[in-house]
Amino acid sequence: MRAIVKERRAPGLSVASVPKPSPGPGEVLIAVRHVGVCGTDLHIADWDAWAQGRIHPPLVVGHEFAGEIEAVGDGVAELTRGQLVTAEGHIVCGHCLQCRTGNSHICRRTKIIGVDRDGAFADYIVMPATNVLPLDGIPTEVGAVMDPMGNAFHAVLTAEIPGSTVFVAGCGPIGCFAVGVARAAGAAKVVASDVNPTRLALATRMGAHVALDAAHDDVVRRVLAETGGEGADVVCEMSGVPAALHQAFAAVRLGGRVQLLGIPTGQVPIDFASEIIFKGITVYGVIGRKMYETWHQMRRYLTAGLFDPRPVITHRFPLTEIDKALAAIRAGDAGKIILEIP
Amino acid sequence: MRAIVKERRAPGLSVASVPKPSPGPGEVLIAVRHVGVCGTDLHIADWDAWAQGRIHPPLVVGHEFAGEIEAVGDGVAELTRGQLVTAEGHIVCGHCLQCRTGNSHICRRTKIIGVDRDGAFADYIVMPATNVLPLDGIPTEVGAVMDPMGNAFHAVLTAEIPGSTVFVAGCGPIGCFAVGVARAAGAAKVVASDVNPTRLALATRMGAHVALDAAHDDVVRRVLAETGGEGADVVCEMSGVPAALHQAFAAVRLGGRVQLLGIPTGQVPIDFASEIIFKGITVYGVIGRKMYETWHQMRRYLTAGLFDPRPVITHRFPLTEIDKALAAIRAGDAGKIILEIP
Amino acid sequence: MRAIVKERRAPGLSVASVPKPSPGPGEVLIAVRHVGVCGTDLHIADWDAWAQGRIHPPLVVGHEFAGEIEAVGDGVAELTRGQLVTAEGHIVCGHCLQCRTGNSHICRRTKIIGVDRDGAFADYIVMPATNVLPLDGIPTEVGAVMDPMGNAFHAVLTAEIPGSTVFVAGCGPIGCFAVGVARAAGAAKVVASDVNPTRLALATRMGAHVALDAAHDDVVRRVLAETGGEGADVVCEMSGVPAALHQAFAAVRLGGRVQLLGIPTGQVPIDFASEIIFKGITVYGVIGRKMYETWHQMRRYLTAGLFDPRPVITHRFPLTEIDKALAAIRAGDAGKIILEIP
Amino acid sequence: MRAIVKERRAPGLSVASVPKPSPGPGEVLIAVRHVGVCGTDLHIADWDAWAQGRIHPPLVVGHEFAGEIEAVGDGVAELTRGQLVTAEGHIVCGHCLQCRTGNSHICRRTKIIGVDRDGAFADYIVMPATNVLPLDGIPTEVGAVMDPMGNAFHAVLTAEIPGSTVFVAGCGPIGCFAVGVARAAGAAKVVASDVNPTRLALATRMGAHVALDAAHDDVVRRVLAETGGEGADVVCEMSGVPAALHQAFAAVRLGGRVQLLGIPTGQVPIDFASEIIFKGITVYGVIGRKMYETWHQMRRYLTAGLFDPRPVITHRFPLTEIDKALAAIRAGDAGKIILEIP
Repeated sequence: MRAIVKERRAPGLSVASVPKPSPGPGEVLIAVRHVGVCGTDLHIADWDAWAQGRIHPPLVVGHEFAGEIEAVGDGVAELTRGQLVTAEGHIVCGHCLQCRTGNSHICRRTKIIGVDRDGAFADYIVMPATNVLPLDGIPTEVGAVMDPMGNAFHAVLTAEIPGSTVFVAGCGPIGCFAVGVARAAGAAKVVASDVNPTRLALATRMGAHVALDAAHDDVVRRVLAETGGEGADVVCEMSGVPAALHQAFAAVRLGGRVQLLGIPTGQVPIDFASEIIFKGITVYGVIGRKMYETWHQMRRYLTAGLFDPRPVITHRFPLTEIDKALAAIRAGDAGKIILEIP
Repeated sequence: MRAIVKERRAPGLSVASVPKPSPGPGEVLIAVRHVGVCGTDLHIADWDAWAQGRIHPPLVVGHEFAGEIEAVGDGVAELTRGQLVTAEGHIVCGHCLQCRTGNSHICRRTKIIGVDRDGAFADYIVMPATNVLPLDGIPTEVGAVMDPMGNAFHAVLTAEIPGSTVFVAGCGPIGCFAVGVARAAGAAKVVASDVNPTRLALATRMGAHVALDAAHDDVVRRVLAETGGEGADVVCEMSGVPAALHQAFAAVRLGGRVQLLGIPTGQVPIDFASEIIFKGITVYGVIGRKMYETWHQMRRYLTAGLFDPRPVITHRFPLTEIDKALAAIRAGDAGKIILEIP
Repeated sequence: MRAIVKERRAPGLSVASVPKPSPGPGEVLIAVRHVGVCGTDLHIADWDAWAQGRIHPPLVVGHEFAGEIEAVGDGVAELTRGQLVTAEGHIVCGHCLQCRTGNSHICRRTKIIGVDRDGAFADYIVMPATNVLPLDGIPTEVGAVMDPMGNAFHAVLTAEIPGSTVFVAGCGPIGCFAVGVARAAGAAKVVASDVNPTRLALATRMGAHVALDAAHDDVVRRVLAETGGEGADVVCEMSGVPAALHQAFAAVRLGGRVQLLGIPTGQVPIDFASEIIFKGITVYGVIGRKMYETWHQMRRYLTAGLFDPRPVITHRFPLTEIDKALAAIRAGDAGKIILEIP
Repeated sequence: MRAIVKERRAPGLSVASVPKPSPGPGEVLIAVRHVGVCGTDLHIADWDAWAQGRIHPPLVVGHEFAGEIEAVGDGVAELTRGQLVTAEGHIVCGHCLQCRTGNSHICRRTKIIGVDRDGAFADYIVMPATNVLPLDGIPTEVGAVMDPMGNAFHAVLTAEIPGSTVFVAGCGPIGCFAVGVARAAGAAKVVASDVNPTRLALATRMGAHVALDAAHDDVVRRVLAETGGEGADVVCEMSGVPAALHQAFAAVRLGGRVQLLGIPTGQVPIDFASEIIFKGITVYGVIGRKMYETWHQMRRYLTAGLFDPRPVITHRFPLTEIDKALAAIRAGDAGKIILEIP
């Protein structure tokens, strides 16, 4: 079958032919229809320091996908051939303290598809049945982006949103999704910031009441002004930019909540006294998606028509044009990019 | 000044002239503009068993109101003459365990205006400054119904609503408000039930996706069908009718939450095993409004335009036509009724 | 192998010889060492209405046990032959809404060992590996009672216990365990009630500060007196007796929490207004054990020496003397009874 | 009356004679019996940068105290002359968003006694009645340290403690109190660290299972070893030392909770990715005491005998020997120091 493969310890991804996998007991074989391209895939292509430490070529990359079940392995009763599905890409141990207490998303032994084992940029992928979620009428192009959507749902819905003011710092695809989730959950006001006007336009399209140009606006002053001087009840830091981190702590109200999802590079100096302690705030590290509360919430929002991620999808390419997709991400203006397997 | 007064231990209310009160230290004098008429007022007028046990005439009745501050007593720094305000009508002790731990709404020593001390159906009322909330641009006719709106906000927002399915049993004014609050907070589906078609039409206007005629529909079966067979995540029982209580327990999903606000008369036999324990549900008794989280939430929803209670207001009368208001309530078709003091 | 079997649709249990089971993929074979006898086993033996509706003979009974792993099936990596283990007896689907959102204990498709499929009163039992929990040094006689202990942990630790006053109504084995759990979790005062002096003595031995004779004391008045007139912060209703249910609602403080575990027979009339709504309380139906938070908590308490269930174990018999065990339960004075398989 | 006074903008405190205050409406006059000396008092005496920016001499210092009510002002109904009391030293506005939603401890307009207005190191102090808490049998020497005890209760009891492993970094008086609170609330294991052997001995006396010498032990490795390799469920960072902050993040388990109370000087560089986000942890800034949940909890623990702070009190002096008290703090070995007013 065709697959996008990291073939060696050097920059680049290849379109290659690899053996079609087959499902073992408790597994299913899925014919992939749509996949989402993530910044992680770019890191692997560019072979940066993180990739060099984590990736063991050869590897089929890609972790965001949806498709159709083509075969089920022994002992899989609840899924059937022909079902359209997506899947959680974190394959967890099921036995550690975190897995045993409802926190599989931070299982110490997580293996991620497209990172630690073969991924989804291919005609087929085999997945454990427990990770597979039927789409129940959700289109596969939407199913293909439920993984990053899930990060946004996790970031937003672990705070108390109805009636709250929410500041989303960083309007990449996950930030834009977060804006839409906050609106759907009854936020009283959503303020978004980014340095890129195209992304701010996407955030506005997803429902942001106010879009701040972080390159030119005084972001903190503006958030305070938009929240009656209090600061935002909830801040979602989706950028990983040090300046935005400080803005997050300055713009959250006393007793508020900061959800950290964006990944800063290296250390960031923080004044714990004034930025966290004296403000009496709560800070939460968002990693992955709650397994499977977040997926349940997404299916509810999507089937109820509360949320539509498609405005954030700005580019579509055939699977084999992965290089064009990576180029579009590098250009900085892209929302979500999906690849299609007809 | 004019006031609606319970003058003696017998049925009826009178329009009477009573002395205008004046504010003591820590109090404010409010010129009333709009008041809401509540079932409680009808109980007092009709002099039913509850009223005979609780009310000590003579008493100015009425507890839902909004108006303009006309004078402030000594030591009141944060309110000023001319402000438009509403007020929490539960006057609490501030020193009991409940008051000391954020649960003033269940203070053992609560005095309610219009029930335990003179109320708001009058040209003027004196209130403790701490109970008074500036309207900040909310119209007084809306301010006048924030007390019962608050019961609905309390019932709905103490459950987890974003993405949830919600069943509201009973579409009196508070039930209709609950429908609107659930929609604004991102409920995936809201099902409402009542025996009265006019009330069901109000519930639909407030956003109910499905309106069930409890006199003819198989309510439980319909809620299950509307929720994929699971039952509703959250049920708000707003009617106090025994049949609706059983429907609430039957229609909530395993592990769901039932918010009880409607007041049944006398005892209702319950099968604790099948209706509560084996379902693993949580049941919560809703009384009053959280002081003052609920008021904060209401102001956020109203000023953000997330919620408008006015479709539920079906009748308006001058203050002195209280008898017409009570007759409209008795007729059974009324939504919320407000009295105006020009 | 030997087993205690419900052979036909009539009263009685038999000691019988049945085939030794063997573990399939994902399963383990456990040589049983100790089992606990439960009221459920008595219902099955006595063939009461519940048993007639639920049980399909022939069936090996018993659901509380601990033992040694004798063999592991294909694909079981995390358990090994020779490990001492206990197990959760609820075998759940893993795919329903409840299972997918951390509430497997109320999975709609739960099968219970010893009730819906062959159980643990036998030389051997086969269990899904995911249900099996290593004892990590906990003795098997303690492991054999972790199922009912877990009900107590679930009932107590889903309330906020540190510094709270706790009233435990009903001092059967689970009630006695609840007393000990509440003490270990830092309850400020634990009051227990029962009609049986032997059980009250057990409750006292488990740490109850006050033991009330429900046959002669004015239970509600006493709980109020012991809690400064407030009522208890948390009430655990472990008896299922209608009078105790009313005492639970009367003895809980305003805004408190009532955990319902005891199963009443038939309907109990409740005054929802005065017993639940006007008190602003929360009521929670306790069923089974949280999978697997409760098990994690138990292992923590047991290995830290915070809790020892053994004072509640009043009788020990060989497996084949099940009739003596049932007779001891019927006599009403027993705490927990365990059967030994040497 | 006698008082310890910051007389001018320079190092030093004076024993001076100042006018005895008298209570206004809603206030009480308290004859002080015992006071606690805090690091804050040392900062004011030493006239460091913080003090220079915050303090406006002349000022009676001191904020931890207990005493006897000598007179009550107009309108104070719930307190009486002769009552032994302590008080919350944060005087809050009651009207801001935080005060209105149960978070007075982070009121933006807080005035602290002994910092922003005259304090408690004096024969008498006037306090708003609402801040005053009857001791109900708790000795005044204990009442005098309920303010810093409250910080410890706030830090510990806003985490889930029963059955948890807890790591307390920093064993000053508040850290030692935290150890005792964690034990009383049913922690499975409490590990404490400090560089000072005297303080570690106090922590052990308060119940720490393991005391780590942060100057010589590999603290993180030891905490991991003591927690089965998982890390602690809850970490209380009570030192404000940058190295301890990093240890806190390294020693908390995946999905755990870090309570930050110690105040670092200046900025501390943090690797948000590895220290917070990828661990999926929650971080909470602890400031003051919850008003008044924390005080309620303290009274419960003290009257129930669950907690005794007195082992931490290492020095007692007469009020006028404040200089000896400050010297003992500077020496670094002191636990809590109290001053007595006979």
